Amino acid sequence: MRDTPYLVVDEGVAEGNLAAMAAHARALGVALRPHAKTHKTVELAHRQLAHGAVGLTVATVGEAEVFADAGVVDLFVAYPLWAVGPRAERLRALASRVRLRVGADSVDGVRMLARAVHAGLDGAAQLAIAVEVDSGHHRSGVPPENAADVAVAALDAGLIVDGVFTFPGHSYGADAAVPAAGDEAAALGQARDALTAAGIPCPVVSGGSTPSAGAADGGVLTELRPGVYVFGDAQQWELGTMPPHSIALTAHATVVSRRDGVAVLDAGSKVLGADRAAYATGYGRLLDHPEARITALSEHHATVTFSTDAATPALGEVLRVVPNHVCNAVNLVDELSVEREGLEVGAWAVAARGRNS
Amino acid sequence: MRDTPYLVVDEGVAEGNLAAMAAHARALGVALRPHAKTHKTVELAHRQLAHGAVGLTVATVGEAEVFADAGVVDLFVAYPLWAVGPRAERLRALASRVRLRVGADSVDGVRMLARAVHAGLDGAAQLAIAVEVDSGHHRSGVPPENAADVAVAALDAGLIVDGVFTFPGHSYGADAAVPAAGDEAAALGQARDALTAAGIPCPVVSGGSTPSAGAADGGVLTELRPGVYVFGDAQQWELGTMPPHSIALTAHATVVSRRDGVAVLDAGSKVLGADRAAYATGYGRLLDHPEARITALSEHHATVTFSTDAATPALGEVLRVVPNHVCNAVNLVDELSVEREGLEVGAWAVAARGRNS
Repeated sequence: MRDTPYLVVDEGVAEGNLAAMAAHARALGVALRPHAKTHKTVELAHRQLAHGAVGLTVATVGEAEVFADAGVVDLFVAYPLWAVGPRAERLRALASRVRLRVGADSVDGVRMLARAVHAGLDGAAQLAIAVEVDSGHHRSGVPPENAADVAVAALDAGLIVDGVFTFPGHSYGADAAVPAAGDEAAALGQARDALTAAGIPCPVVSGGSTPSAGAADGGVLTELRPGVYVFGDAQQWELGTMPPHSIALTAHATVVSRRDGVAVLDAGSKVLGADRAAYATGYGRLLDHPEARITALSEHHATVTFSTDAATPALGEVLRVVPNHVCNAVNLVDELSVEREGLEVGAWAVAARGRNS
Repeated sequence: MRDTPYLVVDEGVAEGNLAAMAAHARALGVALRPHAKTHKTVELAHRQLAHGAVGLTVATVGEAEVFADAGVVDLFVAYPLWAVGPRAERLRALASRVRLRVGADSVDGVRMLARAVHAGLDGAAQLAIAVEVDSGHHRSGVPPENAADVAVAALDAGLIVDGVFTFPGHSYGADAAVPAAGDEAAALGQARDALTAAGIPCPVVSGGSTPSAGAADGGVLTELRPGVYVFGDAQQWELGTMPPHSIALTAHATVVSRRDGVAVLDAGSKVLGADRAAYATGYGRLLDHPEARITALSEHHATVTFSTDAATPALGEVLRVVPNHVCNAVNLVDELSVEREGLEVGAWAVAARGRNS
């Protein structure tokens, strides 16, 4: 027995999610490279590879180090990095032991990467880049028509160019997934064509997010990078991407205070995360009370409003809370309890927790 | 040299904040019992005690265990707990080695606490409770007029009753601090009178939050429990509680992508926290660019909008980001870098990180 709050994975549901996304990628004819920032566990990384993933996507050099240590040999840090200080040496060390790809969206950034990985005397380190393209999310990434500039700089600096990628983050919104997948295909196609026109081969055309994966264009993409699909969360539930029976991770929390129609649970933003997107109906959901809403969230408490006093759980009841954004919830704990049909069968260490750099 | 992103404490600024709140409590004539959930470090706990704090406030049994191990002998878990399972044994163990007070807002909760601490054979464990009163935040807590019911149940169950407490969380809002401090004093005064009328002494009348501390009523309160004041954050800055020169904790982050008027930093919700209160002007602030705003935040990136392209920092520049809610930021890292006049002089372990239960 564990003290609440703690995070629980339903192993059977997670396994079903892994199988379904692997089948989807096969049907589309694209490689699957899941984003491991969602789960940060060695166990799920190995399962994703067993389901046919070609490698993993990670968010940071620190995550790459954790998964390289666990035996994963093909890793993609899918963001532009500024390769100075200890990070430069860490990149060189990684590039000499795994097949490493890093995102890039500037000529200066590419030159820093090349200096970092070529600074060693051994000459063994090889680094591939993929050019990040902005397909409508407007975070990092170049306009598609400028993709060749970064690729040319990379080749000039002695790096390998794998191709182009984007993150269609604007898929997170009501009815936004299908248009975002269209933007993704258009931007990636244009960027691929720009590289080809410059005489640069573009074997990798990489996209994907969990909401947009279902509408991804297999005629343009060669690789898909969803992350959240392994667990699901309240965001995916409310976006309509994943139904509640596909949600594989919940926070178990106890009712510690109660009044008419309101239960206060001992799970707050320090275990659920504080995410609340514009489209969210609350600060998370209850898996077994779909009508209830978390109407307030503080560090250690969720205030849940029920439709009637009769529907409100009693003091001491343990409820299953679905975090809004599962990636941030997982990053708040040291381990995940693993259950099979409601019984704890083990625990997985969140091996890459806190690996922000 | 560290790789960004990482959290940095300006030791001199933090020391000034500790001294100022200690002086304020002395001037008010109330005891100071700072909430250690903000910093979660042994070093700052000892400094708060050195500045005259009578003990610490904590959020969980796990935090209490960390600070008890560090030699703190007077601890208040300022929330109602449901004392079953391992938590019951942990409470009993704690209560037999430190002076322990726990919050309570129900007769059933009090009875569970009593069973937990009196279950041992040694009889050495003594537990005090304070009755939580709702002063307008509407999370946990009984209406003030019902405070005596919980106190009577506690005495009947063999517990010590220290008094009453509240968290005026509705002080977090534009121009809300002074009215919230008024609500706090009114609710606590009424609850104290209810205990007194029932013949129950009420030596402790405890309130306080960082925004409301300045307006706390020393005629009613005997104890103040602010937490955030040690570091400050963008919420306190925007509420007008703490000016930017009092902010003692920032995330150092690198510009990894840039376009006209926009810089993308390598610090996102996994190091800053995802908090964004209704009154916040963005997802955090930049200490050295008060006009800039974090207009979007993802897990690993802050998108910062500047007034002009000329004002936008260059690729590779390291900036100081002020998290919206510092308590959640601190809980995301294993240690805090400590600087004196811009030079790193050490690091403090976030000893109670992740202690959610």
